[in-house]
Amino acid sequence: MNTPGLELILQNISRFIELNSGEIDFFVSLLKPHHLRRRQFLLQEGMVCNYTAFVYNGCLRSYSVDSNGFEHILQFAIEDWWIGDMYSLVTRQPGFLTIDALEESDVLLLHRDDQLRLFNEVPKFERFFRILLEKSMVMHQLRLMENISMPAAQRYQIFASRYPQIIARVPQTQIAAYLGITPEFLSKIKKDLLRKK
Amino acid sequence: MNTPGLELILQNISRFIELNSGEIDFFVSLLKPHHLRRRQFLLQEGMVCNYTAFVYNGCLRSYSVDSNGFEHILQFAIEDWWIGDMYSLVTRQPGFLTIDALEESDVLLLHRDDQLRLFNEVPKFERFFRILLEKSMVMHQLRLMENISMPAAQRYQIFASRYPQIIARVPQTQIAAYLGITPEFLSKIKKDLLRKK
Repeated sequence: MNTPGLELILQNISRFIELNSGEIDFFVSLLKPHHLRRRQFLLQEGMVCNYTAFVYNGCLRSYSVDSNGFEHILQFAIEDWWIGDMYSLVTRQPGFLTIDALEESDVLLLHRDDQLRLFNEVPKFERFFRILLEKSMVMHQLRLMENISMPAAQRYQIFASRYPQIIARVPQTQIAAYLGITPEFLSKIKKDLLRKK
Repeated sequence: MNTPGLELILQNISRFIELNSGEIDFFVSLLKPHHLRRRQFLLQEGMVCNYTAFVYNGCLRSYSVDSNGFEHILQFAIEDWWIGDMYSLVTRQPGFLTIDALEESDVLLLHRDDQLRLFNEVPKFERFFRILLEKSMVMHQLRLMENISMPAAQRYQIFASRYPQIIARVPQTQIAAYLGITPEFLSKIKKDLLRKK
């Protein structure tokens, strides 16, 4: 098993729970390393999502495509982030999200069955994922409130200050698809912001 | 302690975990019943949210007010639902949400400190809230994707089919504040939908 990925995921987990060496061995035995070329899919719309992915190299995104062919991005995930289709993971039904790699990427996959087994055998992981979900819920609620109450220019500024690492490495078309606006409108926003400075 | 509220909350919990009588007694000892008159606040913006509330009678909402005085609703909570300001509960910082009662309401309050104590003493509750958070996350993700990809008319139709109990009892102004549109625009949407039928 590769060392850089393991180091990062164990560090990620140790932020919220402490594992003994037996628990670490068991957890590590459940992980599957997976390499993705740029633009390669981890999950396609209409498939059941079986895995939660931990990114230790590169950048993934989850998105849906509307009836007009436009992409709408739910999440970016760079190093040290988790990504999956929560709806499909929870319901075990085909999902509405596609997940692919924006850069050549490496992930560690945890199968939902193994995650549920982990909850039974090492209940500390219930705590870990409960805390991860609480934090993720906070970010989802902030974004929801911003989406219904703020103009796109303000939402772009918040996104840029909240996720400077993502602004720096993800193409503008992708940022526009995350904000729910056209790339042309995002260009206009950025020009207007520069003029105001 | 009042019986109708307890019956409902124990039934709510038994959907995901099984408690023995000692665990039930301990859990129940942590709950504080609280009555709210119509329009009474449970939480005001800028306060630290200490409680997660379980509604067993009535209807609450969480919302923020923007700089122009417009209300934006994050969540409604009727009987059998949980509500709180996740950001403030998790960070222990003053929150950005206000929670009040749209109808005369009764809730059972669980203090964050008691919830954390519960996690330590009855770890099954980590599982309960982990599952609750997973389900809530699914609904937040669906709403986020709908907000960035669908026109308001379509989002209204989805809301009406997903939450018929809420459409039936909550004023139109509140539904508009949830969808992020003006009440006038919601009226127009409803007239257009009726015309199409």
